[in-house]
Amino acid sequence: MAENDSLSQFLTVAIDAAKKAGEVIRQGFYRTKNVEHKGSVDLVTETDKACEDLIFNHLKKHFPEHKFIGEETTASHGASQLTDESTWIVDPLDGTTNFVHGFPFVCVCIGLTIKKVPVVGVVYNPIMNELFTAIDGKGAFLNGNPIKVSCKSELVTCLLTTEVGTKRDKATVDATTNRINGLLYKVRSIRMGGSCALGLCGVACGRIDLFYELGFGGPWDVAAGVVIVKEAGGVIFDPSGNDFDITAQRIAASNPLVKEAFIEALQQSA
Amino acid sequence: MAENDSLSQFLTVAIDAAKKAGEVIRQGFYRTKNVEHKGSVDLVTETDKACEDLIFNHLKKHFPEHKFIGEETTASHGASQLTDESTWIVDPLDGTTNFVHGFPFVCVCIGLTIKKVPVVGVVYNPIMNELFTAIDGKGAFLNGNPIKVSCKSELVTCLLTTEVGTKRDKATVDATTNRINGLLYKVRSIRMGGSCALGLCGVACGRIDLFYELGFGGPWDVAAGVVIVKEAGGVIFDPSGNDFDITAQRIAASNPLVKEAFIEALQQSA
Repeated sequence: MAENDSLSQFLTVAIDAAKKAGEVIRQGFYRTKNVEHKGSVDLVTETDKACEDLIFNHLKKHFPEHKFIGEETTASHGASQLTDESTWIVDPLDGTTNFVHGFPFVCVCIGLTIKKVPVVGVVYNPIMNELFTAIDGKGAFLNGNPIKVSCKSELVTCLLTTEVGTKRDKATVDATTNRINGLLYKVRSIRMGGSCALGLCGVACGRIDLFYELGFGGPWDVAAGVVIVKEAGGVIFDPSGNDFDITAQRIAASNPLVKEAFIEALQQSA
Repeated sequence: MAENDSLSQFLTVAIDAAKKAGEVIRQGFYRTKNVEHKGSVDLVTETDKACEDLIFNHLKKHFPEHKFIGEETTASHGASQLTDESTWIVDPLDGTTNFVHGFPFVCVCIGLTIKKVPVVGVVYNPIMNELFTAIDGKGAFLNGNPIKVSCKSELVTCLLTTEVGTKRDKATVDATTNRINGLLYKVRSIRMGGSCALGLCGVACGRIDLFYELGFGGPWDVAAGVVIVKEAGGVIFDPSGNDFDITAQRIAASNPLVKEAFIEALQQSA
């Protein structure tokens, strides 16, 4: 089988897994309002775990020789170290706070790396019924329609998405709001949606022009999204301007036209 | 006709107007990607104007004796001063930046005040197909299903939505980010969606727990939303803790349980 045929097959199986998990998320999403607070926390944990099991079992059945890295249960399913082997990197439920609150930005993220490079990406929001997909070299799609990044070339016309993260020590909080303060003079406006993967997909389909996040959970938040952004014509880099490192919990994305100006603005706001 | 019957009739006509305008917005929303930047700006202006004309004409046909206040064309349709008379307050397109960028949080807002008190509210997001409605004393609804605010009683479990507004002078930007800095230690997380009316509706349906915005455009951004929040069991107030003033361009909303803690947090972050 040619490599591209394999990648297409990998994508098809990943989409099936994402849709199955999405159905579990959708059912839980509309139940969270009816449970007490403790119940909500249990529900998110249960949903997260159930979806990861479902996805890993589905992928393992088709690709028993592949490796698996997931947010929830990496230990019980295989190696957590990213190697050159074909490795599925999965966040069964990105946007868990949104899930608990019923805010509609939640998604399943399934990425595949080969030789540590993400080559297949699926991000599925089952509440808004949006399926973002990409294969290395084959373009990016939203519900089957080709997508591309925006063509904005000036920061002042750009919409930026970022997140405030979960750390609440003074150094982190000050750095977060100082960065926002500096960027506010340079971009049109700021959105915060609560899902790193959907932030990346927002750049990919041109809904937003700029995205950065520091201190997210791990490679499962970005492995799928980076393929989707790149295949939509976008660029992925470290907010410092250095090369993106999938293990570093730091990411920025934009179209190529505003990349340098965005990096300069991030550096000046640090 | 009893007053409640009138209010029901007012709501029915307002929903019809919102759905007609929503169709115009939906068509424009998917066209913005295909026009140049200048074209996007024209498109938003054209859509805004077309929707306001459509809404006002529809309302005038049914209620020729009513007054009208709108964001776009107040001057050509009637008095801009809010009086005791029955007055429709309309934002034909809330979230214009989102509209231009294709970010799905856009809506039509139609509120009715009688003796300066908002008594009917319609907020319609035609992209996500969400119709929020309320009549004074009759509850609030999302697509016909009753909604209510969250029952969170502690700030630390609350999801907050706010906006960074459009002013970029140093005093405003510093106040904006200092407020966010202070609040980050007290709430669970922050979202920014880019629509004041949808922020209010988010509180009404319990997707978010807290909302505040300072410096929004005018009463058309909030007239519909305040009825929806109140009828969902929520409270509307000035971020300072004072009574809400529909002409003041300052608003906060929450469930009643966290109101005092929210005001205290806002005061401490000022």
